[in-house]
Amino acid sequence: MTDSGTQLFEELDPQPRLLMGPGPVDVYPRVLRAMSTPLQGQFDPQFTEYMNQVQVLYRQVFETANHQTFLVNGTARAGIEACLTSIIEKGDTVLAPIYGRFGHLLKEIAMRAGANAVSIDTEWGQVFTAEQFEEAIAKHKPRLVAISHGDTSTTMKQPLAELSAICKQHDALLYIDATATLGGNALPVDELGLDMVSAGLQKCLSGPPGSSPITFSDAVAERLLKRKHTEAGIRSAEAEALEGDGPIIQSNYFDLPMLMDYWSPKRLNHHTESASMLYAARECARLLLEEGLTACQQRHQLTSKAMRAGLEAMGLELFGDPQNRMDNVTGIFIPEVCGDGAALRAQMLEDFGIEIGTSFGPLDGKIWRIGTMGYVCHKANVLRCLSALEMTLHRNGFKTPQGAGVDAAYQVYNNS
Amino acid sequence: MTDSGTQLFEELDPQPRLLMGPGPVDVYPRVLRAMSTPLQGQFDPQFTEYMNQVQVLYRQVFETANHQTFLVNGTARAGIEACLTSIIEKGDTVLAPIYGRFGHLLKEIAMRAGANAVSIDTEWGQVFTAEQFEEAIAKHKPRLVAISHGDTSTTMKQPLAELSAICKQHDALLYIDATATLGGNALPVDELGLDMVSAGLQKCLSGPPGSSPITFSDAVAERLLKRKHTEAGIRSAEAEALEGDGPIIQSNYFDLPMLMDYWSPKRLNHHTESASMLYAARECARLLLEEGLTACQQRHQLTSKAMRAGLEAMGLELFGDPQNRMDNVTGIFIPEVCGDGAALRAQMLEDFGIEIGTSFGPLDGKIWRIGTMGYVCHKANVLRCLSALEMTLHRNGFKTPQGAGVDAAYQVYNNS
Repeated sequence: MTDSGTQLFEELDPQPRLLMGPGPVDVYPRVLRAMSTPLQGQFDPQFTEYMNQVQVLYRQVFETANHQTFLVNGTARAGIEACLTSIIEKGDTVLAPIYGRFGHLLKEIAMRAGANAVSIDTEWGQVFTAEQFEEAIAKHKPRLVAISHGDTSTTMKQPLAELSAICKQHDALLYIDATATLGGNALPVDELGLDMVSAGLQKCLSGPPGSSPITFSDAVAERLLKRKHTEAGIRSAEAEALEGDGPIIQSNYFDLPMLMDYWSPKRLNHHTESASMLYAARECARLLLEEGLTACQQRHQLTSKAMRAGLEAMGLELFGDPQNRMDNVTGIFIPEVCGDGAALRAQMLEDFGIEIGTSFGPLDGKIWRIGTMGYVCHKANVLRCLSALEMTLHRNGFKTPQGAGVDAAYQVYNNS
Repeated sequence: MTDSGTQLFEELDPQPRLLMGPGPVDVYPRVLRAMSTPLQGQFDPQFTEYMNQVQVLYRQVFETANHQTFLVNGTARAGIEACLTSIIEKGDTVLAPIYGRFGHLLKEIAMRAGANAVSIDTEWGQVFTAEQFEEAIAKHKPRLVAISHGDTSTTMKQPLAELSAICKQHDALLYIDATATLGGNALPVDELGLDMVSAGLQKCLSGPPGSSPITFSDAVAERLLKRKHTEAGIRSAEAEALEGDGPIIQSNYFDLPMLMDYWSPKRLNHHTESASMLYAARECARLLLEEGLTACQQRHQLTSKAMRAGLEAMGLELFGDPQNRMDNVTGIFIPEVCGDGAALRAQMLEDFGIEIGTSFGPLDGKIWRIGTMGYVCHKANVLRCLSALEMTLHRNGFKTPQGAGVDAAYQVYNNS
């Protein structure tokens, strides 16, 4: 019956890859299988119970007692925008410290949400000191500070404890983008006193992009409820009485008070929950919690250590401040003989099926980024990547001592 | 290694359902399987080729030559907001004719995007006449008219040809929310002269919620590019030269000019494409095109006809204007003896595993909605639903002639 001239293309059949770039990484097969589970309706008692379970699971992942812990239906960036757009009111001063691409992004989203968005900068490859934060916060008196826990563009991780304390002293809220770090790096939300946090699945959580777990405190929830405006088409007399008198949030899709209702026993309809992605997010959390948060972080630390030892033994230079590296991605300077590194990356992909990345902006063509996260964060992949890299570097004219990278990685594992 | 006290819950194991509510409906198994396909990186040449194929496939689904045809990463509502937030500039007059819940939604999203949002209303269960449109457009002179093709809350379908002609006469753009209709009801975008259209997967396309195919004309694209502001963290000198001088779009995630770059050969990074949902969307389109657009629409027409004949033969009263019903969902008045109908719906779900819906706002507890769409739109499901409904109505004290519903449905099939 196919109409004539229709272009259908072939059945989906991607070649196998080993994804060792900055993300997405290979999805854990249990998560892939979870996504092929048949659906239930969004108000089916079994399905809403799965929604409740997702909340319990992510409270454990975020190490928080925050009641408001749920999924935003979109990629990690959707979670960022839901948090910022809902908390920011027009004219609020928002400080977005920039230590990589994602600082620019947070500043821009804040600006689009109507904030007076200000920033401080540091060189890409460094993080901020407590003094720098203290000075900027005292000067700008922001209502909100927005920063990434780890910025994949530079592979750096910003320590958060002192920043959080400074924010509290100055009565500023603290939003953290944990997309790149959650699961592979410690992020005890309550212990750190973080007000709002969002993440994604496609890094250390071994899931696909497309769902964003978020969490925020009761105090934030209370502020958000002042901006509650339930959709006219479903507003009941009961909802009418609970309308906030604050300014309406500029997005309907990212309106957190409405999402809070959807994720509450009221189940007041908003979007139609992306069930397959919820199944994925649920399985990602189960896998992480089954392994244990600390065990998973240690696996990321050990694997990065082995990868870095291997890279250095091959004569490559690691990028960025050694004290503040993320535990799941490593930057290395592209050797001069490899130019902007694109040819070598293409060979790694085409000839060995291994993906590694470059970066953005000032680091585009200057560094390679090698991810060792989630399902990919294992010894066999470190050794595969190092040996393929040795072969490929060799073909591109960069000489390394034969087997040195793999030997150094072995040594790290043997001593662990 | 699991930390003590961790709550993991059981393996995902939802009971089987037959989803005959207003959506989501059962996902076609080929689509479920597509989602379990391993990932590739977002800039992998094979993956970007899949992105290109998705564009070609959805041009055929939308029956359009629009170059700008791609996916928004979120549920159908995300696609709506991406279109409206990107095209609307502060102060624009936007007309959102309201004939059900989703008219309210479009008006609200327009308002949140800064529009002077105006509306006209008609009784739920009716659609608008060309005269009503003409009068409202002449009066308000909107820059944009935004309306749903089908409003699931009322099961009504708005004819669009005359509206489109009126919009052209008055130089107004026309945005159509086709979430509820695409695939099961004719929607030849170019023939109808629609400027922007968005949809979802979870209705007639037999997919899960979580991806929104959209399309818009070159003229719309040109207008949008005046508002192009590339993210600071990835803005090149080349991009700098192409910045628009129009007001920045208030959302980063829904910024269509940036999405246009991401879906172009430039592949300028924005979000990280939700690959699993893209695989799903690709398979949904392949299934529809394999069957043929006309054949699929005819299947929906015939199935609805059989379902309606069965419902009427059981003594139930169909809801809404018979001339303008959607071909994929049917409203029926809840018999008085069934109260608000919730108990019967729960029995249908718990005892027969069949989900049917009620509606929102003025129709909440007044009508049931029975969907026959996508993978569910087949004779066996009509007969299953009618027989289960007869049994359940009987137990709730509503008497029907034995077997009358199924017989009437058989008759429709036998005469087809």
